[in-house]
Amino acid sequence: MKKILVIVMDGLGDRPNPELGGRTALQAAYRPNLNYLASRGLNGLMFPVKEGVRSGSDTSHLSILGYDTFSVYTGRGPFEAMGLGMEVMPGDIAFRANFAYMNEDGIIEDRRAGRISESTEQLCRAISLEIDGVKFMVKNGVEHRAALVMHGAGLSDRITDSDPHVVGKSPENVRALAPEADFTAEVLNKYLEKIRPILKTHGYNKARTQSGNLPATELLLRGAGKAPTLDSFPDKFGLKAGCVVGIPLISGICRLAGIDVVNYEGATGTVKTNYQGKIAAALRALETRDFVLVNIKAPDIAGHDGKPELKRDVIQESDKAFGQIIPHLDNIVVAITGDHSTPCSIKEHSGDPVPLLIASDGMNRDGVSRYDEVSATRGSLRLKSTDLMDVLMSASDRSEKYGA
Amino acid sequence: MKKILVIVMDGLGDRPNPELGGRTALQAAYRPNLNYLASRGLNGLMFPVKEGVRSGSDTSHLSILGYDTFSVYTGRGPFEAMGLGMEVMPGDIAFRANFAYMNEDGIIEDRRAGRISESTEQLCRAISLEIDGVKFMVKNGVEHRAALVMHGAGLSDRITDSDPHVVGKSPENVRALAPEADFTAEVLNKYLEKIRPILKTHGYNKARTQSGNLPATELLLRGAGKAPTLDSFPDKFGLKAGCVVGIPLISGICRLAGIDVVNYEGATGTVKTNYQGKIAAALRALETRDFVLVNIKAPDIAGHDGKPELKRDVIQESDKAFGQIIPHLDNIVVAITGDHSTPCSIKEHSGDPVPLLIASDGMNRDGVSRYDEVSATRGSLRLKSTDLMDVLMSASDRSEKYGA
Repeated sequence: MKKILVIVMDGLGDRPNPELGGRTALQAAYRPNLNYLASRGLNGLMFPVKEGVRSGSDTSHLSILGYDTFSVYTGRGPFEAMGLGMEVMPGDIAFRANFAYMNEDGIIEDRRAGRISESTEQLCRAISLEIDGVKFMVKNGVEHRAALVMHGAGLSDRITDSDPHVVGKSPENVRALAPEADFTAEVLNKYLEKIRPILKTHGYNKARTQSGNLPATELLLRGAGKAPTLDSFPDKFGLKAGCVVGIPLISGICRLAGIDVVNYEGATGTVKTNYQGKIAAALRALETRDFVLVNIKAPDIAGHDGKPELKRDVIQESDKAFGQIIPHLDNIVVAITGDHSTPCSIKEHSGDPVPLLIASDGMNRDGVSRYDEVSATRGSLRLKSTDLMDVLMSASDRSEKYGA
Repeated sequence: MKKILVIVMDGLGDRPNPELGGRTALQAAYRPNLNYLASRGLNGLMFPVKEGVRSGSDTSHLSILGYDTFSVYTGRGPFEAMGLGMEVMPGDIAFRANFAYMNEDGIIEDRRAGRISESTEQLCRAISLEIDGVKFMVKNGVEHRAALVMHGAGLSDRITDSDPHVVGKSPENVRALAPEADFTAEVLNKYLEKIRPILKTHGYNKARTQSGNLPATELLLRGAGKAPTLDSFPDKFGLKAGCVVGIPLISGICRLAGIDVVNYEGATGTVKTNYQGKIAAALRALETRDFVLVNIKAPDIAGHDGKPELKRDVIQESDKAFGQIIPHLDNIVVAITGDHSTPCSIKEHSGDPVPLLIASDGMNRDGVSRYDEVSATRGSLRLKSTDLMDVLMSASDRSEKYGA
């Protein structure tokens, strides 16, 4: 029985870049360790979630961990809240939220309160409070965006939005769509009532008005979602599990799955992260665990920014760090893949498959000795991400036998 | 319309063996016929049951025959009984059983009655009897192991074990877990009561006691399972079907599926089987049938024993016999694959995919001209075993059109 190391290079997949002579960032990268690891096992393509799905990092990581996203994914609310670093517990209700400008007559005049440029952190703190045993926690996002999490007993996400979705109207009264949501709608309406005077009189908004900006006098809520209860990953696979990840969205998912979040020096979740430290931390974590998931966010950031040279460079930095894995192939089955493609040419996630390598001592090898999107097409594997864990359980000789 | 010949080389898949210069048994075998057949059609990888599943021979053969194991597989009881050569009919209840030593006070002191070394066949015959219209059939397995099959009307597997699973306790009274199982529990408790004096006074046990061994004074039952009712394979595919197999587990599955079991000279289900006779029998059986399944058990035995040279040799013997198939490619679509991998390096089933070739005249060819685990990765096919029959029905021009 071997240990399992899964390295997800976020947004790894790419398309040809004119800036790189028509090559993908991965093809253009100097990557001796990735190529060597490719030669030590099986290669191929992985389809995040399934063929042709343009997945997010949340749905993709859920499926890489073996969850059927079509049954467990409860919408963006809870995952965006996690992405902002909020602790979301099973049963919590989470919303996507906008700070908006509502005038004296209660009419929404600007759904983005003039696209706020300064952080709304102090405003969010001021309207994080408790009513009738329900905690309301608000966390600032980019510009006018925020997330609201409701934590308490007996909450339901079967409620309507307060966001009227158009200007010139008042915020909607939140209504229950099912009897079990009556309490949730009631306490949420109380909450929205209670925070209006707080927002109106807050120094932050006075300052905005004085400087000629629209004040953030209303919090518009949409997309209520209940944080899913995930079956325990360690129980399901019989693995003592940890993760080394720099971004809150993925550590949030791991927490929901019962996977330890391992801290490491220099974690940033940016292109300046400590690549060597991350892989060293993962290998250390594996000393006392059976499974470790690593997420390297940098390629996705470079892809979203449309910077092929940067994407190439962060892959090169990662490759240097992967050299640390090679001496451990007698004891570890390593999988290196992406959670989705983020081609620099479109600056967004695409549904393209991602390269996958699975390497360890004693495995069959499929003769592929380069790790990139095109070489992977000559490999032996074609996997949906939801099947990856089963394949790794088998490759590490940990599967239960099914049958006699 | 062609006929279909499916040859399952049991436990075929392998991993690199140091004894064979880092090659798999298949790579190391002289296999001109397999290589020629590979060149005459399509090649690739088959995933027994599905990707990453470490399947047994039972679940895998069920899926090769087109059954969804996740809905028809009812646990090991009925299949282990079949594996011991017992006839198990749909609706029968089968158990895994242990001969145990129960003392005068009715306490289980040894769950294995000292790991019996001589056959318990006569003991099993003595306690095979009928009560209230229910036949109880017991068959000896290895050492203290046995199987019990209940045959009669109105039986249910919704009952508890009699096995207390620990020493120092009395056997449990069998209880019904649902009202429809009341009769089953009642008649089973009567049976266990009735066989106790038979076991206690049997000459076999007197001899054991005299020679200082623990007598087998109790039959502990666990894992009740109802033999599944399989849809008729001949009806489902419109094929007159037969099988040439040497091992009871697979012939039992074929019987449940309504597939004729064809006898042949020299059948042993061991490494000494009559390879030429087996393939000759299959070709003869195809003269009056549309479909024949062949199982060659030998590679699995060599894999479990961790003997790569033996595994190579039995593949070579099989290859010689496969020469008989080549003149019939105008009339037959042949598929050659494994039911799972049994790598010599781990002496157990693994979840690795197995090579698959499908050959016949008039087919497209994918240019692969070697038959082994690594060459297969360059082939065109990636199939779950449950899809194999559909692909063969299509390749033999027998499929119903789906649509207009």
